[in-house]
Order: sequence, then structure tokens, then C-alpha cells
Amino acid sequence: MKRALLMSSSRMGQLGYLEHAEQQLHTLFRHDAQEVLFIPYAAVSFSFDEFESIVKSAFARFGYGLKSIHHFSDPLAAVNNAKAIAVGGGNTFALLNRLYQNNLVEAISRRVNQGELPYVGWSAGSNVATPTLRTTNDMPIVQPPSFNALNIAPFQMNPHFISGKPVGHNGESREERLNEFLTLNAEEELLALYEGSALYIDNQQGRILGEKEGLWFRGPNQIDKIAPETPFELSMIKGVN
Amino acid sequence: MKRALLMSSSRMGQLGYLEHAEQQLHTLFRHDAQEVLFIPYAAVSFSFDEFESIVKSAFARFGYGLKSIHHFSDPLAAVNNAKAIAVGGGNTFALLNRLYQNNLVEAISRRVNQGELPYVGWSAGSNVATPTLRTTNDMPIVQPPSFNALNIAPFQMNPHFISGKPVGHNGESREERLNEFLTLNAEEELLALYEGSALYIDNQQGRILGEKEGLWFRGPNQIDKIAPETPFELSMIKGVN
Repeated sequence: MKRALLMSSSRMGQLGYLEHAEQQLHTLFRHDAQEVLFIPYAAVSFSFDEFESIVKSAFARFGYGLKSIHHFSDPLAAVNNAKAIAVGGGNTFALLNRLYQNNLVEAISRRVNQGELPYVGWSAGSNVATPTLRTTNDMPIVQPPSFNALNIAPFQMNPHFISGKPVGHNGESREERLNEFLTLNAEEELLALYEGSALYIDNQQGRILGEKEGLWFRGPNQIDKIAPETPFELSMIKGVN
Repeated sequence: MKRALLMSSSRMGQLGYLEHAEQQLHTLFRHDAQEVLFIPYAAVSFSFDEFESIVKSAFARFGYGLKSIHHFSDPLAAVNNAKAIAVGGGNTFALLNRLYQNNLVEAISRRVNQGELPYVGWSAGSNVATPTLRTTNDMPIVQPPSFNALNIAPFQMNPHFISGKPVGHNGESREERLNEFLTLNAEEELLALYEGSALYIDNQQGRILGEKEGLWFRGPNQIDKIAPETPFELSMIKGVN
């Protein structure tokens, strides 16, 4: 049975790193993940060691062990032997590019989609779990070989959702950006999540975790709300397939 | 002599479309562009006809004619016959993808860089005039064949520059995004422009137009200011070449 937890953000409001996510992680790992394989490839402005240290502390408080993939000489073997995978946030383009460089895209996608191990991602780690990175908020600081990603969620997602734009600023608001996606890709829909929210995937079903509703963008300026803690069929939200 | 005007934005504060840009456009066109070829390919949420209409009105007030490339049966011939080119804002990925689809990237780059005609772009139209779209603020709603762009400015630029982030939001600030670019691409620098500012390129020289200074990002958290109306050598800012 496929299981994945795709979180909007590592932080909610003024809380510490993953502090809001304890119950969400227990929902996924069920208190029994002995050692989680951590993928720190989204880190750009800080080292993989630093990233591992931050996440390891948070996971340890919740009772989970964690080891970063950059300690393994053969990353693909590490993925193939993993009991659980966590993919941290940062820059989605750097993350996907490094997954391709290490030849991990197909293996992670296949193993998670076949239900061989649970997957948790947050921010960029959630973006990369969708069919493509076309709805990331990140700057395209490096060109990956392809925009195609892990395809664990069968539709596009937008993490860190925030409405509107700063007063006096003329750049696009988040809604305008997502409307552009939905206009250019008219056969697709997407799920946007406020910070602190997550999508929990249990085989063919989805459930929004956290206090806030999920935003189901069905077309330009056409948004339905999905109540938290209420299961729905993942196929309800149209993806590329 | 190469001449180009790369504006941060179509609007400044509460002013109307291109209203702040009249003097900047006269600096480029010198009151003598009879008909400017307009490229509306960045438009996603509105039609090319609508986009042309908005820009045509603004240009007419300043004394310039304008016709959009979507009225020409042979877009490449239109570029090869153009006396001046204007590229409007919108989504940079859609813009670059359509430039590739219509086989225009090489022709525009070559003609402008050889000084055969002046180029004006704003927002996405400025992003696409740099070596690549790696420092756009836009959502990657479509995958272009390559991130390589027109290379009229010999370095990366970031339009619509705005500092900081909304209170309580945990997404990256603009400075954090640009720091990520500068970290992953350590041999490069970039120029960020506040809304209302522009880079005027006169052969090998640059000049910031508008009231605010240009921000020369020389490395992570290392920003020098470039005073407006003061010529500098373009080679001062390190690009990919």
C-alpha cells in the first residue's frame, strides 16, 4: 500500500523546525521507522551535514532515526535498501537536478508507488513528489534534465500557499501564478496547501492533515475547499495522466 | 551599436501601464521608431490581442507605432524585417518556450547584439534578454527546450526586486532566492532592479535609469549599489561568458 506525507512547509508560524508536524509524521511512520533515509539535495545555502543535523534532531524528538544519503558511497543502493525516505525543503530545481545526477528518480518513484516504503517530503520535497516541478515557488537556479519528477501524488501541488501580494508591488500574486498554470495546462487541476498543512496519501485515498483546508484549484479563479481530516479519492483532482 | 532597454516592470507603484517609462523609452527609441514589432508571448491569462491593445495605447501616447508578431504569418521574417522589438511581461517560461517554438531565439539575439535594431523588454521581457532564465521570479508552468535565452545583457538580472517577506510566512525571501543562485553559480554575479528602474545598454556600457539604484549582487549577502544615471562598463558584472 502506497503511503506518503507531503507537507507544505517545515515550519508553521513561529514554531521550530518540523515542530508542528509530530502527529503528521506519526500518521505516516506509525512509531516504527527505525532509520529513515534522508535526502538533503534541496539544500543550497547550507551544507548537507548541517541539513542532516537539523532534521535528525527533530526526528529524534519524535522517536525516529535518520541518516543522510550523502554518507553512502552508492546512493542508488541506499535508496534500494531504504525502509523509509524523507526529502527536505530548499530549492526544488537543485533537488530534482541532483536526484537525476544520482540516478534516483526512477528508483524512488517506483519503490514508493509500489508501496515498498513510506515517503515524507516538505516544501521542495513535496513539489518533487508530484508529476513535475511546474508548480514550485522556487527560483530556477539550475536547469534539470527534465521537469518530470517522482509522480507520487498524481497531480500538481503548490506548497507554502499564501494569498495576495505586498501593497504597492506589481509582481504576480500566488493566485495569478497558479491561474497561469491552469490556463496553459487547461486539462489539469492542482492542490495548494497553506503552511502547516499536509496531504497524506494512503494508497488511492488522500486526506488533508492540519487545521486548515486544502485549496483545490479546478481552473482559473475556480477554487474549492477540501476540509481537513476528511478522506477523498486522489483521482478527484485531475493530474496529467 | 547595440542598444537595449531592460525594465524591471511595466508599472511603478500606482501608475498606469508603462506610464513611468516614457523618458526611458525615448532614451532607447530617440523619438524615431516608426513601427515596433511587439512580442506578446509572455501573456498567459489574457490574449495576444488584448496584450497588444494595452501596449499599443501606451506606445501611441509616446509617439511610437506598434504591431504584434501574432499578426504575421511568418514570425521569423517579421523579426528579420523589424526596425525595433518590444517584449512584454508575463510568464518567462511561456515566453521563452514560444520563442523557441517559433524559432526566434537565435535571430533576435543575433540582430540585437549586432546593433541592427533596438530592443526593449520589461519584466519577463527583461529576464529573457539575459543569458538564461535562471533568475526569473516566475512559476515554471511549462518546460522550455532550454533555459538559454537571448543573451543581450551579458549577465543575469532579477526584475521586480523586493526585499524581505510577509510577516509569519516561511517561504524564501527574494534575497534568499538570489543567494541560492549565487551559491550554486559561484562564478556569476547579477543585477537586481526595483520596480520602475531599468538597465539601459549602449554598446559595452550600462546605465541604471529611474530614481533608484541598481543592486549588484556580487555573492551571497554581498550587495553593491549602482547609482542611477551613471555609466559603467557592462563587463563589470560577471556573467556566464
